[in-house]
Amino acid sequence: MNFALTRRQFMLPIGVVYMDGNSLGPLPKAVPDRLTECVTDEWGELLIRGWNEAGWMAQPNKLGDRIAPIIGAAPGTVTVGDTLSLRVYQALYAALKLNPERRVVLTDSGNFPSDLYMADGLLRAMGGDYELRVVEPEQVSASITDEVAVLMLTEVDFRTGRLHDMARLTSAAHRNGVVTVWDLAHSAGAIEVQLADTKADFAVGCTYKYLNGGPGAPAFIYVRPDLIELAEPVLQGWLGHAFAFDFTTDYKPAAGIDRMRVGTPAILGMAALDAALDVWDGLSISDVRAASIRMSELFIGEVERRCPQVELASPRDPNHRGSQVSFLCDNGYPVMQALIERGVIGDFRAPNGMRFGFTPLYLRDEDVMAAVDILDDILRNRLWDEPRFHQRAHVT
Amino acid sequence: MNFALTRRQFMLPIGVVYMDGNSLGPLPKAVPDRLTECVTDEWGELLIRGWNEAGWMAQPNKLGDRIAPIIGAAPGTVTVGDTLSLRVYQALYAALKLNPERRVVLTDSGNFPSDLYMADGLLRAMGGDYELRVVEPEQVSASITDEVAVLMLTEVDFRTGRLHDMARLTSAAHRNGVVTVWDLAHSAGAIEVQLADTKADFAVGCTYKYLNGGPGAPAFIYVRPDLIELAEPVLQGWLGHAFAFDFTTDYKPAAGIDRMRVGTPAILGMAALDAALDVWDGLSISDVRAASIRMSELFIGEVERRCPQVELASPRDPNHRGSQVSFLCDNGYPVMQALIERGVIGDFRAPNGMRFGFTPLYLRDEDVMAAVDILDDILRNRLWDEPRFHQRAHVT
Repeated sequence: MNFALTRRQFMLPIGVVYMDGNSLGPLPKAVPDRLTECVTDEWGELLIRGWNEAGWMAQPNKLGDRIAPIIGAAPGTVTVGDTLSLRVYQALYAALKLNPERRVVLTDSGNFPSDLYMADGLLRAMGGDYELRVVEPEQVSASITDEVAVLMLTEVDFRTGRLHDMARLTSAAHRNGVVTVWDLAHSAGAIEVQLADTKADFAVGCTYKYLNGGPGAPAFIYVRPDLIELAEPVLQGWLGHAFAFDFTTDYKPAAGIDRMRVGTPAILGMAALDAALDVWDGLSISDVRAASIRMSELFIGEVERRCPQVELASPRDPNHRGSQVSFLCDNGYPVMQALIERGVIGDFRAPNGMRFGFTPLYLRDEDVMAAVDILDDILRNRLWDEPRFHQRAHVT
Repeated sequence: MNFALTRRQFMLPIGVVYMDGNSLGPLPKAVPDRLTECVTDEWGELLIRGWNEAGWMAQPNKLGDRIAPIIGAAPGTVTVGDTLSLRVYQALYAALKLNPERRVVLTDSGNFPSDLYMADGLLRAMGGDYELRVVEPEQVSASITDEVAVLMLTEVDFRTGRLHDMARLTSAAHRNGVVTVWDLAHSAGAIEVQLADTKADFAVGCTYKYLNGGPGAPAFIYVRPDLIELAEPVLQGWLGHAFAFDFTTDYKPAAGIDRMRVGTPAILGMAALDAALDVWDGLSISDVRAASIRMSELFIGEVERRCPQVELASPRDPNHRGSQVSFLCDNGYPVMQALIERGVIGDFRAPNGMRFGFTPLYLRDEDVMAAVDILDDILRNRLWDEPRFHQRAHVT
């Protein structure tokens, strides 16, 4: 697979090697025109009629169907909208209700803190007898017992890139009567996710990282098709109602994935995402994954050969990590600032992690080599400013 | 106040009399350029650095501060993001937690069904002993007792325009130890809301109606300043954390209105809203309200004089209704379709309500008179198609 044509579909600032698509994907060139069309032709001309005539109302499920093949899901099992935090909340509640006799939510310290916060808030709202059990990533497997209601994990650790084995852990969960909630924030568009094949119960993810939907682009939720009619929505918004436009006072969940819709969909963000997903037409996620692994192996090999000042923090086996690589580095923060000033954009995660993403949609081997050259130069010649204060990097 | 200059700030299709700003406001002309700037210059050029350098991270509170004066709130008391449904959920939970000994949520049948659905979902999640008590609008006042934990109302009825007396009901609630949650969906930008003066506890609203933020524009939430440090967030998203970028595993709510932030903000929708709010610079909401009343009185007078086929469903006293007027009409659905085909865009609410909004930002007396002429012609000469099926109108 040659990604040269794919790369041309992105607007990339001149002189930039962008290794932070795991935080915010770059701008697909199709987005500005699609947004203008949505704003000027649809909102401006159709006004309220846009909900029907421009297809706005159908957009959440239409986008879900476009994301589905990228995460190994069938059509009709994914819907788009709201934020990842909300989707975690929805999925965890529905998962707990499928296992009403149990009270333990098992997760790990490699999960997003935000997922833990959302879970904690939900469990508190549901009353005191639930437990959020946080173990180390390597203890997850052994901690899956018949005491656990829900196994809630982020597949790829946002700090180290460590990759959980979704198939094996889901299978272990099911053997123990445990329902699974997978956060695909660092998976969707980066690695081969097989939701249907692994029989994962619920999955959630965001679209502003590897799917390049733009800052604050809407999230998605997946429910295994045979569970959806049993899945109890906690966020009973009107667009998840079986008959939203009857305006009855009682809530009745819609059939299918529609019940996971909540409020009025954010159409501008969805228009941008729709255009961004055009990049994926004709792409195979296994080709993307293979190219990402090749580039990350190249990067690790070259950095370890030339930069003894840093230490690999990611799993060495590419099958055990996502599409990002983290190196520990004294002065990691100012070194990353120096990299960014020279056009190599990765990011920093406290206390001393430098994180680099490998996204073949727009990153080439020559970019990887340029990044190593610049990192080597900075480290070898100590070309960073001593930190005056530690400003925090933004957005996981 | 002359709104001629204000009107010029909107893109209005030629030949359209737009009386549905209570569903979706029209496109402010400043929006397309601001969106292009956000997408091309910020996302495209700054990439991940946009969160800091383009001010994306600060946008929810900055927008809140722009909305605050329109709803009689102080700076620092409003934040923007997510959907109105979510904001109802958040506000109701925090309100209930301020009144932990009580179990009744009082609301009325004039509330949005969606608000009732969200409340029902929340109360069920919180366990079985809560009651959502739905009374008729005229019974609300007498139903405020010391059994009630929270009074949750939408100020303006989306069907009839009937306006609750926020000051009086809030005062009655407080005398009975009841916490209030006000939904301002049909109030913000339409009528003079005085959140600070009325001492309302929580308020929520949307920005795609009278604030013209676009389809699915983000919602807002207000918390009375002396309550905010006591307000318990149920949606514990990372951006409501006191130290979001420390990525600690335990949630600690941020000081101030920040704790009502949840996930990563939808920046494209916020950019559009930011541009849309420029229209309000220099406008006084009391002038807007006065002009709206004048036009709605003109409309009611003319319609009643010329169209005996319809019956006013809104309160006759303009001080008892919002900025919309509803008429009951046999064949209301096809009559509204005929109006729309001739450029008069209002909307239909089952079973037989025709709803017209009066928004002086872009509606003139001559538009009102043109709408009456066309309505009169359609009714007098039976110029509508007999309905083959009753398609439902979209979006409250």
